Parts: sequence; C-alpha cells; structure tokens
Amino acid sequence: MAKDFPTRVENYAQWYNDLVIKADLAENSAVRGCMVIKPNGYAIWEKMQAALDKMFKDTGHVNAYFPIFIPKSFFSKEASHVEGFAKECAVVTHYRLKNDPNGKGVIVDEDAKLEEELIIRPTSETIIWDTYRKWIQSYRDLPLLINQWANVVRWEMRTRLFLRTAEFLWQEGHTAHATAEEAIAETEQMLNVYADFVENYMAVPVLKGVKSPNERFAGAIETYCIEALMQDGKALQAGTSHFLGQNFAKAFEVQFLSKENKLEYVWATSWGVSTRLIGALIMAHSDDNGLVLPPKLAPTQVVIIPIYKTDDQLAAISEKVNEIKKNLEAKGISVKYDSRDTYKPGWKFNEYEFKGVPVRLVIGPRDLENGTVEVSRRDTLEKATYQLSDIETKVEHLLQSIQENLFQKALDFRESNTSKADTWDEFVDLLDNKGGFVLAHWDGTPETEQEIKEKTKATIRCIPLDAKPEDGKCILTGNPSSKRVVFARAY
Amino acid sequence: MAKDFPTRVENYAQWYNDLVIKADLAENSAVRGCMVIKPNGYAIWEKMQAALDKMFKDTGHVNAYFPIFIPKSFFSKEASHVEGFAKECAVVTHYRLKNDPNGKGVIVDEDAKLEEELIIRPTSETIIWDTYRKWIQSYRDLPLLINQWANVVRWEMRTRLFLRTAEFLWQEGHTAHATAEEAIAETEQMLNVYADFVENYMAVPVLKGVKSPNERFAGAIETYCIEALMQDGKALQAGTSHFLGQNFAKAFEVQFLSKENKLEYVWATSWGVSTRLIGALIMAHSDDNGLVLPPKLAPTQVVIIPIYKTDDQLAAISEKVNEIKKNLEAKGISVKYDSRDTYKPGWKFNEYEFKGVPVRLVIGPRDLENGTVEVSRRDTLEKATYQLSDIETKVEHLLQSIQENLFQKALDFRESNTSKADTWDEFVDLLDNKGGFVLAHWDGTPETEQEIKEKTKATIRCIPLDAKPEDGKCILTGNPSSKRVVFARAY
Repeated sequence: MAKDFPTRVENYAQWYNDLVIKADLAENSAVRGCMVIKPNGYAIWEKMQAALDKMFKDTGHVNAYFPIFIPKSFFSKEASHVEGFAKECAVVTHYRLKNDPNGKGVIVDEDAKLEEELIIRPTSETIIWDTYRKWIQSYRDLPLLINQWANVVRWEMRTRLFLRTAEFLWQEGHTAHATAEEAIAETEQMLNVYADFVENYMAVPVLKGVKSPNERFAGAIETYCIEALMQDGKALQAGTSHFLGQNFAKAFEVQFLSKENKLEYVWATSWGVSTRLIGALIMAHSDDNGLVLPPKLAPTQVVIIPIYKTDDQLAAISEKVNEIKKNLEAKGISVKYDSRDTYKPGWKFNEYEFKGVPVRLVIGPRDLENGTVEVSRRDTLEKATYQLSDIETKVEHLLQSIQENLFQKALDFRESNTSKADTWDEFVDLLDNKGGFVLAHWDGTPETEQEIKEKTKATIRCIPLDAKPEDGKCILTGNPSSKRVVFARAY
Repeated sequence: MAKDFPTRVENYAQWYNDLVIKADLAENSAVRGCMVIKPNGYAIWEKMQAALDKMFKDTGHVNAYFPIFIPKSFFSKEASHVEGFAKECAVVTHYRLKNDPNGKGVIVDEDAKLEEELIIRPTSETIIWDTYRKWIQSYRDLPLLINQWANVVRWEMRTRLFLRTAEFLWQEGHTAHATAEEAIAETEQMLNVYADFVENYMAVPVLKGVKSPNERFAGAIETYCIEALMQDGKALQAGTSHFLGQNFAKAFEVQFLSKENKLEYVWATSWGVSTRLIGALIMAHSDDNGLVLPPKLAPTQVVIIPIYKTDDQLAAISEKVNEIKKNLEAKGISVKYDSRDTYKPGWKFNEYEFKGVPVRLVIGPRDLENGTVEVSRRDTLEKATYQLSDIETKVEHLLQSIQENLFQKALDFRESNTSKADTWDEFVDLLDNKGGFVLAHWDGTPETEQEIKEKTKATIRCIPLDAKPEDGKCILTGNPSSKRVVFARAY
C-alpha cells in the first residue's frame, strides 16, 4: 500500500493528498469544496475535541449553540468584519422547492423568497454579539465565557482536504469582559491553551506571536497566533486568539452597568481551532511509509497481531493476548487485537504501519514458550523483543517515549529550518532554497509587508511574543527596525 | 422566580415556554424559527450525547461527517423522499456578496449564482448514499455502521423551543447491509438502544411500535418508533429507526458483489434522535416549581449550600464540604458548592429548585456540631436530616432512588392515561376529556386514518410491537380489525 504514492521528496503536495485518501481519513464530496470526513479521520477529531473541551472547561468555559444562519445585515454592522467575511460565503435566498411543472424533479419556488438573505456562518461574532446584548446588563453578568463546537462555511476557490475546505468543523470561543485588561488576559490564556494542546497532544512545536495588521482577523484589535512548521518547510497557522476590543460591543450595542454605576461597552475576545489541525498533524509527522500519529491522539494506540499455524496455537495466543489487552485497557490505552484469518500477518503489518498505529505487538507460539513478545514502534520503525512480564508498564512507557520523540524530532526539524536573513538576497535565497522560518527585520509598515509578499510569496507569520529587542534594518527598504519578525511561505 | 409564570393546569404550553426561557435553557434567536441553546440547555445535550455515543459505539458504530450541502438533484432520485423532504428547506443559490453600489451595506452578487442550487440537509440519506456508492464494492465492505452528529434544517412554519425548530441538532445513523434480515435486525437493535436511553437515562417510559404507512419516513419500508406521553396527555415521538429496504441503494446505484459472486443492491437503515429530546425531558418531569431533571442527565447532580453568620463558621463548614465534595466527585457525582455571599440561602434554595438540581445539601454550624446535614430531593420536595457518616453512599443511593422514582411516576401517569375505546363516541370523549393514549381498532386503511385525524386531530402513534391479536371493529368504519393500535394527539 505504501508503494503506490509519491514520497515527500518527490511531490510533497501529492504525498499529502494521497496519504489522506489512502489512509481513509477524508475525501472530496459531490459538493464542490466540501469534504467527507471518514471514520478514521473523524476518530482523530473526536480525540482532539475531547482534549480541547476539557481544557476549555478547566479554564471556566461552557458550551452553547447559536444559529447557523446570520441575517445579511448583521455583517454590515462592524466595518472591517464585513470586508473580511461577508464576501465569499453561502447565501440562502429561498426556503422552499416545488415540483417542476415540466416534470423534471424539483425547482426553487420563487414565491418562497426570503425578505432578507441569510448567510451560512463563516464565523459567529455577529450573531453571538447580537445575542449577548440581551444577556448582558450588569457587571454581574460578566465575564461571559462561552464556546461553540460547530460547522462553518467559507466559499474557498482552491481547496485541499482538511487544510482548506468550504465547510469545516471547528470550535469558536466568544467571551465578554468588563475591562480591556481582563479580555487581553483571556486572549493570552487561550493562546497558551492552544499552544499547550498542539505541543503536548499533537507533538508539534509552535511559535507564539501576534499577527501584523495585514494578517489580523477582520474586526480584531490584536490577533495572537501559534505557528507550526511542516516537513516541506512551509508554515501553518494552527490557532488564533483575538482581542476584539469594544468593536463588536459597539456594533451590536452591548453595554453594561459597571460597579461604579456607569454604562460602558463590553470588551470581547474570540478564538478558534478547526479540523485544519488534522492536516497539520499529518504534515508534521507522517512519512513515506504512511501516517505517523502521536500516541495521545491515535484512535488505536496498540495493535496486537498473532502468528500461528494451528487453531490450538491461536487459542493459546488469544488467551494471553486477551489478558494483555485487558490490562492495557485498564491503563486507558486503546488496543486492537487483529486475529482475522482472512488476512496474512505481512498484510496486517503494512496496514497498521500505513494507518499510523504507534505500537505493534506480535506474538507467535515461540514467544509464548519463551515469555516474550516482538514490539515495534511506528515512529522509528525499530523492533525489539520484550519479556512479557509487566508488558503493560513497558508499553505505557514506550507510548510516552514515542510522544516525546515525535515532539523532539519536530522541534529539531524546526530549529534546523529556522534561519536569520540580514540582506534581501540572503532572504530570497533562504526562501527559495531552504524554506522554513526566516527571522528578519521589517520596517513595520503594511506596504513593505505587502511588497515582500508579492515578491516572494512569504508573509509575516508572527511577531514573536518573546522577540528580543535588536536594532537592524528592514530587509526590503533598509528602514530602521527594532526586532526581527518571522517570515515564511505558508499554507 | 417560580411565581411569575403559569402552572401546568393554567396553561401547559405557556408553562413549558416560560420554563425553558426562565431556566436559561434556550431562547428564540434573531433568525426566524432558529433557537439559541444556552449553556444550561446545552449541558443537558452534552450529557445525552455522551450516553448515546457510548451506546452507539458499544454496538459497533463509528462516527463520520458528511457535507451540510446537498445538490438539489439528489432529492429527486428517491421518489417518495423528495415528496417528504425537498419542500420546506433552506436553499443556497449564491456564493458571494458584494458591496452595495449605493453604499448600503452588502448585496448578493448576481454573478456568483450557483449552477445547481444546494439544499441545507434536512436529513442526509441522499448525500450519504451517493458517497456509499464509492465505499461499497464487495460483501467484505459490509456492514457499514456509521453515525453522524450534526445540525439539520427544516423550514418549519410554527416553531417551539426544542420541540420544533428550523435548525436543530441531532444524530443520524446510516447503515448498509448485505441482507434484508441483517438490516431489519439493525433497525430493531437501534430502536431498543433508543428505548433503553429514554427509559433509563431520561426516566421516560416509551411504547415501541411501527408507524402506519401515513406516518412513515419518506423513503422507508418500515418506520419503528418510540412514543412517550407528556403531562398534558399529548404524545411525543422520541426517536425513529427506519428500515429503508433497497430504496436508496437503487436510487444511488449502490451495488455489491455477494459471497456468491452476484451483483446485488445494498440494504439500508437510518435512525435518529434530536434536541427535541430535551423538550420531552422537560415536559415529562418538570413541575410548577420549575425544572425536574433525572440525576443521570442533570449537569449538576448535587448542590451544597452553607448557612453561616461568621467567617469562622463559613471556614469550618467549607472544610467539611470540600471533603464531602471530593468524595462525591470520586464517585462520579457532579457537585456544586455555592458559598457566594452575594446571595442569601433562601434565594439559592429557590434558584436550584427552579433549575432542577436533584439533591440539595444544606449545612449550618449546628449540623457541624451534631454531625448532620439537611438533605432535600427535588422530585418530591421532601427534606430529611442525615448523619454525615458515609454521606457519600447515602447521596449516591438517593440519586438512584430519584432516578427510579421519576421513571415510576411517569409510568404510573402513562398507565392511568392509557384507555381503550370501543365506540366512536367513547373515542372522541376520551380524546377531548381525558387525553393520553387511546387503544382502539382500526381497519388498516390510510383513508380511515386520515379521516380520524381530520375529525379528532388524533393520529396513530404506533402499532405496538407487542400488540396482542384481538378481533374487533374499526372505531370509525366498523370494518374488521385484528388488533388495537395506539391513537393520541401529539406534539
């Protein structure tokens, strides 16, 4: 199975697409730009959701659900938001079909035209802040800490499974606060939650920073982001957290009576991650043999395969395996025992390697006699023979070790693919011949950023939160700069 | 809080609506017919989802996600499905907005008209079976046991929070099988899963049966359902499970090569429950004092309220309470300790009674001295003083007892509101003056059912699976009948 698609070096884009399809994660649907998330892919999303949802609740948030439809006029209320979001979107204009009088199926019933068109939410700030107006009267109603798990639609012209699709699944947090300080603290807290998740569950290191004005969310005062590096040297924005100031409160007239009995506008944040993270997960770790999944997000963490010739041998192996399986499951480890006789062991080895199961155990009659088991790890493809005694603890440690190794490998990759450029030629050469993150000086103007983008296709991925002050000259204009920012070509 | 809305006897419909709104479960949104599910309501849905999702997985199902958009032409492929579903629905005709040249916000860009309109899914059989065609080639690909958690839209004219809304949340299972027998067994299995959930989690007894042809799902050969009785004597369909035969396989050309190497059409089922269940939960148990929630679905199962005058007293009580809370949580019981000094105990008592928290513990300084606690149960409003020793086990048993009591109470209510009618006058009298389920003979024709509906507003809720053979005469026509069916007015 691993042989009939290109390697990463041959064609990274094709490698990614083929891997997603052949590993049964997702496929394109009959509807242009929309994907079907297949059970194998959805199981990864469920694991991501469970971990994130717990982190959101542990930081005091609750879930709710708002309508998928947004009245068209809502978008016009926040000036920069309408520019960013009310353009490429799905528009509902009618609410009924009728039989075609010519007998050819069904047609739109022109009598059922909506007075005002409804937009399928591309993001929910507008409908949510229109609702918050009714929920917030006093400082006692604040903070309001709400998250929504939902589908959203952005009519993208060029789509790519998981990374950019017309419809995608995500969560969007929308919080309301009495002060700017509190809202900024929330924005930063959620950035840290995302960084924690991406680094410790996805095993992908991230840079934390803020976006330049050009790359800011439409309607935000400040957009915080985490940026990850993929194996082809391109950057991927893995999550954003926005400080929205009072923009939406003013657009939707959301005011509260403060402790000092003054009427004030509410301060807002919003933050989100999406099924795009599944794309990032694949691109960061997988290899030419197929998927590589970090144990914490692998739907199946351990697969056990028996080697046998006779039914008696299988029975003896199965007895031992069921005991191991039970003990592993008691530790919260998900285990699949594949004793099907319709497939040969070699086929199974390839299958689970391709699907990215982190640990494989193989047991044959001789292992039973010797009290051993063959253990393979997917990340390094190494094999070893383990004693069966206390195998559960050994497997538990191995899973931890794989999780850590994947992170370390990705971190090493990022470090060796992060460069400094001090001249324009160096900058272009790095982008064209090495890729990765390029730290360079920028004069701080949107015009310069735009010109760099047009000339090189590289954008400012972020202004790192931990950037050290350093006097320098802008890579393009030579104008003075006080710190380096992170450039890259990006997904 | 409980005083400013009608009792159930005064105005059941208003009681329900006020309760949903005042208990902060849901509210109407700015978009006609769409609701906002508020955090208190969504928390109930999350508990329902968790329980159902586990039951689906325990019966071998996996989750996936299919597009929200369905090409219009797909609906025309299954003849009866188009009649049932392709009418009152949200139609996407354009994919872009543009700035109004007159400067008045944004307008639909007529250049961005879709070649074929897209329908927001009212249910997903068509898009899913179009996808299954690619997934199913051989008997080895079967059965395919997939569930989806999603939002759907049906453009309802008269809406009611949770019970009937334009957009709602649900799950829809769609399975594919090699034989009719296996598909029917799946349909029945999922009916039993639903009945198990509604009876054992929601504490609402249900009748299991099949629908008459008039009430069948559009495209089904047989629709199985569970029917519950609300406190106003009206029935509510709580879940349906459909045997779809080969209808969708034929419409979407889904064939497989059988073990005998013959090309055959696939057999299908679909089954779903929705946020409507939250409405059923409220209507079945709540009372004139507010919400009553069965412990298994109550987001907060136990609330603890301290009674104190001095800070020292509060500190001593809190120390004890934190110990109790920790022990209860170790048993998987969700506990809220409300020690806020901004609200008086009496206010808190009302608040949690109104919100339906099953068990309330109150501890004051004298309780601490005596080693006691005051325990109140929401279902009966009874109070008792318990010794603190082993309080966790006592509370655990109390929660079980409340769960059982709610079921028994609902069962008693249903039994005393289930009647037999043998004449038309009796039938009409029962419907008008008593309500509830009425068991009566029916001649089996759609015409008679339709006439009964027009005359009485009652429909056949189901033909019970356990109906005993009994010769009789149709309540309307006097024609012969071999068993009684269940009539009721319904939500």
